[in-house]
Amino acid sequence: MKPLIGNLLVAQSGGPTAVINSSVAGVAQEARHHRCLSHVYGGRNGILGILNEHLIDLGRERPETIEALKHTPAAALGTCRYKIDFKKKPEKAAREMDRLFKVFQAHDIRYFLYIGGNDSQDTADKIHQEALRRGYEMRIIGVPKTIDNDLPHTDHCPGYGSVAKYNACTVMEIAADVSSMATDDGSCCIIEVMGRSAGWIAAATVLAKREPDAAPHVVLVPEIPFNEEAFLAKVTATIQAIRYCIVVVGEGLKNPDGSEYSADTSRLDAFGHPVLSGAADRLAEVVYGRLNTKTRSVKLGYAQRCAVHYASATDAVEAAACGEAAVRAAVEGRSGFMVKIVRQSGPVYASTTGLQPLSDIANVEHLLPRDWVSADGFMPNEKFVQYARPLIEGEVKVPTEGGLPKFAVLQNKGLACQLPPGT
Amino acid sequence: MKPLIGNLLVAQSGGPTAVINSSVAGVAQEARHHRCLSHVYGGRNGILGILNEHLIDLGRERPETIEALKHTPAAALGTCRYKIDFKKKPEKAAREMDRLFKVFQAHDIRYFLYIGGNDSQDTADKIHQEALRRGYEMRIIGVPKTIDNDLPHTDHCPGYGSVAKYNACTVMEIAADVSSMATDDGSCCIIEVMGRSAGWIAAATVLAKREPDAAPHVVLVPEIPFNEEAFLAKVTATIQAIRYCIVVVGEGLKNPDGSEYSADTSRLDAFGHPVLSGAADRLAEVVYGRLNTKTRSVKLGYAQRCAVHYASATDAVEAAACGEAAVRAAVEGRSGFMVKIVRQSGPVYASTTGLQPLSDIANVEHLLPRDWVSADGFMPNEKFVQYARPLIEGEVKVPTEGGLPKFAVLQNKGLACQLPPGT
Repeated sequence: MKPLIGNLLVAQSGGPTAVINSSVAGVAQEARHHRCLSHVYGGRNGILGILNEHLIDLGRERPETIEALKHTPAAALGTCRYKIDFKKKPEKAAREMDRLFKVFQAHDIRYFLYIGGNDSQDTADKIHQEALRRGYEMRIIGVPKTIDNDLPHTDHCPGYGSVAKYNACTVMEIAADVSSMATDDGSCCIIEVMGRSAGWIAAATVLAKREPDAAPHVVLVPEIPFNEEAFLAKVTATIQAIRYCIVVVGEGLKNPDGSEYSADTSRLDAFGHPVLSGAADRLAEVVYGRLNTKTRSVKLGYAQRCAVHYASATDAVEAAACGEAAVRAAVEGRSGFMVKIVRQSGPVYASTTGLQPLSDIANVEHLLPRDWVSADGFMPNEKFVQYARPLIEGEVKVPTEGGLPKFAVLQNKGLACQLPPGT
Repeated sequence: MKPLIGNLLVAQSGGPTAVINSSVAGVAQEARHHRCLSHVYGGRNGILGILNEHLIDLGRERPETIEALKHTPAAALGTCRYKIDFKKKPEKAAREMDRLFKVFQAHDIRYFLYIGGNDSQDTADKIHQEALRRGYEMRIIGVPKTIDNDLPHTDHCPGYGSVAKYNACTVMEIAADVSSMATDDGSCCIIEVMGRSAGWIAAATVLAKREPDAAPHVVLVPEIPFNEEAFLAKVTATIQAIRYCIVVVGEGLKNPDGSEYSADTSRLDAFGHPVLSGAADRLAEVVYGRLNTKTRSVKLGYAQRCAVHYASATDAVEAAACGEAAVRAAVEGRSGFMVKIVRQSGPVYASTTGLQPLSDIANVEHLLPRDWVSADGFMPNEKFVQYARPLIEGEVKVPTEGGLPKFAVLQNKGLACQLPPGT
């Protein structure tokens, strides 16, 4: 096969994670080994930056900076939630696609790697189809990324192991705190975690549970409709037995009718919007109101998805490996695939990478299997633990300065624009 | 001086911290060097456990377990918020004091060390006065502990450096996340931290600010009445300049009339209680409502005060040193004092310990000085930074097992009760 000579463009999309920059580092480091890749560019703020011809030259960053991306959280290239929407705005989408290819041509982009979740893989797929349609020789590979762990076909998603590790650690520490204060009056702490419609993140806090009585005591996942009476009975029984109860709730918890538990439309704030108190705060009101038990809530929010100071080394290594694999696949002539993580069989955890057509990924949401959760729906079971345990192994080493982490700072050497703006 | 031979009792009180167990370790390890201390006992759940004659023998714990307390968060002996209330319930208080001394006598307790905050030092002082009144030869020393950092006379409080470090790290990580997602629409993230009426914890997040544009961009402390218009102007200007804004708010933020900002009495929940949405959630409603800017809140809650996985080594070492100093002071014949941390002068940070009469500590709240905050009230200044910076230096090393921290577990070998219950 004749090598395709040209430039490689990598961009990040969607919500950041603690290890998404490891994938960028993997891409940049692997690319150095391939002569056909003349330059490695980064697109600022995902597809949005490419539309704006806002590209930087990653080849001009110091190798130490690229390596330091492996302990730098969030999207160093910037990210976006922008979608080229062929369904709702077909004309605008067609213009945008046209613009993208003008940018690709202007900078001789022949390799495009897009690091992101579901929507981003969909975008990558559309670009791949468009390149074929236009006869523009180009190779497009998706790199998986999402703390939500809801991409199909990949064993798990880079970003998930780190949020799982940080949250499980936090549950252990909070449990130590709450149990040490617990008196006969009882107390309850409700911890809200991310994950949208998927319960993977909430479920992973079960890894904190080393003893039967250890926290978490109740894990509420969006896949299982919330049953308030059964929940209160479980909290009551736990407090009676051990004087405290740690509840973990996925932010997307659903009512039996499928509506979001946290969206309380019965109350309006001072500006007339429905009060979005959050799932944990609503549950805390219910526990305190119905059981008259001291109840506190914790909402980790963004803190959980960028906590590189307690990120999983396994996750960071796999994220980099996905970036490397994407480069190799593209150089080998593949296009229209997402890199996936494949778990090896055997008693010791090991993973490798594979490829899956992008069209298999887009718009498919992979949820927590029902048979990975206990019959009562309140606790992930051994099948889940077997799956998740290896993903949190090892700690990312983050250098410190003055007692705080030291992150990579890209120089962001921009490329000169070749096109008039917005054409 | 003839040595006072007898047993030493140590107990923990009030809200836990990441390093309160370091003080217990310091006590237990120092006590081994003093022959006059026949046994070292721990009181379960503070004064409450002593009233219930619920004591354990720390001398029967393995030395490795005692050492491991230095990386174990929360109160390993259990804690309480119980107060012997001479003002409101003088008769009950007198009976309780009587009971305490029966327990002390029954177990030949001649040394009592109480690790805690303001209320706990008050309790220690009362016990000291009572011992003098009764002519019961006993030495009582308080050991400082509070994340809130609001004890007077001590340069700072064990527990503070660790919450400061964890929160500042979290602000850095969240800022990386939010800034990488920031587009021209702007976004705001509001992080609520603890500290009750004191702004020390909120203020410490300024340590994350290594560059003028770095987060936090606004720090709201309870000592400075909240000015909504000035706050919104500051958020608006920040978003205009750098497209995002990270706000840190102390939970005890006050309105200009002195009322708590987070207690919204205008709204009742489903059970008829005022909605306690929390300061961050209220601010988020205001920012979103008034500025129409995407706004997210984070409420670290208990997570921040038990986060030993990113605790300050300086803090842990000083917490242990305070425990050791308490033992030495008591053995040397002192009673009725609290150990305090004394900052040494000189270009390199160093601290030693001193003693302060308990009566100077009780019921005095040490707040953030106004001249340690910028004129506009939104940012701690260089005086504060000089003070706080050294307190977060170094990381506590926490061993892991299966990717998660491994904490000490006391065997809790209980002492046989010598008294009928509740007499």
